[in-house]
Amino acid sequence: MSTISIIGSGSMARAIGTRAARHGHTVEILSRNTTAAQELADGIGHGTSVGEYGARPSGDIVIVAVLHQGAVEAVTRFGDALAGKILVDITNPFTADATGLVSTPGHSVAERIAAVAPDDAQVVKAFNTIFGGVIERDEPLDVLFAGGDAEAKAAVAGLLRSMGMQPRDAGGLGMAHALEWAGILLVGVASNGAGFDSALAVV
Amino acid sequence: MSTISIIGSGSMARAIGTRAARHGHTVEILSRNTTAAQELADGIGHGTSVGEYGARPSGDIVIVAVLHQGAVEAVTRFGDALAGKILVDITNPFTADATGLVSTPGHSVAERIAAVAPDDAQVVKAFNTIFGGVIERDEPLDVLFAGGDAEAKAAVAGLLRSMGMQPRDAGGLGMAHALEWAGILLVGVASNGAGFDSALAVV
Repeated sequence: MSTISIIGSGSMARAIGTRAARHGHTVEILSRNTTAAQELADGIGHGTSVGEYGARPSGDIVIVAVLHQGAVEAVTRFGDALAGKILVDITNPFTADATGLVSTPGHSVAERIAAVAPDDAQVVKAFNTIFGGVIERDEPLDVLFAGGDAEAKAAVAGLLRSMGMQPRDAGGLGMAHALEWAGILLVGVASNGAGFDSALAVV
Repeated sequence: MSTISIIGSGSMARAIGTRAARHGHTVEILSRNTTAAQELADGIGHGTSVGEYGARPSGDIVIVAVLHQGAVEAVTRFGDALAGKILVDITNPFTADATGLVSTPGHSVAERIAAVAPDDAQVVKAFNTIFGGVIERDEPLDVLFAGGDAEAKAAVAGLLRSMGMQPRDAGGLGMAHALEWAGILLVGVASNGAGFDSALAVV
């Protein structure tokens, strides 16, 4: 098992951190809001620690679990502290009514994060097609992901498997925009009968 | 059971027609290529007929199973012959390398078809997130669909159920663009390990 660092202290940070900790990983929370970070760490338990926001994260894999509006800013703020890290973008850049995206092809949040991250950091898009509550439920589920670096993707796939999830490789980082639309699609099917405990899967 | 009209004579026309006929529906094929239409009708069997291209289709539900480049033109060509019909857009407006779309938000093929169809025709997007071979395999599967008219959507959902498929309502016609991206996503996961006999599902 390994150390997983999570930037953010919201519901997705809690969901991913909780599931990772339950499956034996050591979790580190990094948030601008140190009070929220400590509360989240205490809530997750299993020895979850709070790291210094902006300092080098402990984990090789860093989940960027902030709202889409703040993701590029957060990665910029950490700057060289993220050298060599695998950054997992989980954001959904929805419009206010969640029927469209504020991003465009070639300019997904994942691609914009990659543009500001250190050269030897790698970005993988994942987790954005699953509701936090479904992640926390700790049942088997598919996680669609995409990224440009095979080694980074293999590491994320390994993490997902260790958490009882089935990684589903969708392709290169350009596919992150398709995943952003899949987030919209999930909200659509959830709102129109499938319910918010549903998830996308590949069968 | 009812009559299902299909515009087109390609692989998706065959897949949907074959599955509909197997489940007791009467199928009508309408294609500019009358030879291909007859061959397809003979191949599907079960009394499948060939209609006159451009004339009023027999079925209340008309599957527009042509390539995306020709869909708007085909619906324009039929014109008022489609009055009152439910038009099912199944197209995938992929770029040549199938990693992006030639359509844009608000201008999905389904929305462009709706713009040229008779006022009292209704457009539903469906079937574009399933490979033809998977449809023909005739096993249970999820069909993601979207449309603006509740009655038309209920009719399409009923057709899908009658064909042994689970309809998954994704929302209004604006969601058709998200479904177009889901088509890209399916090709992505199929190309990166899941295989071309896979399908998207809601679990």
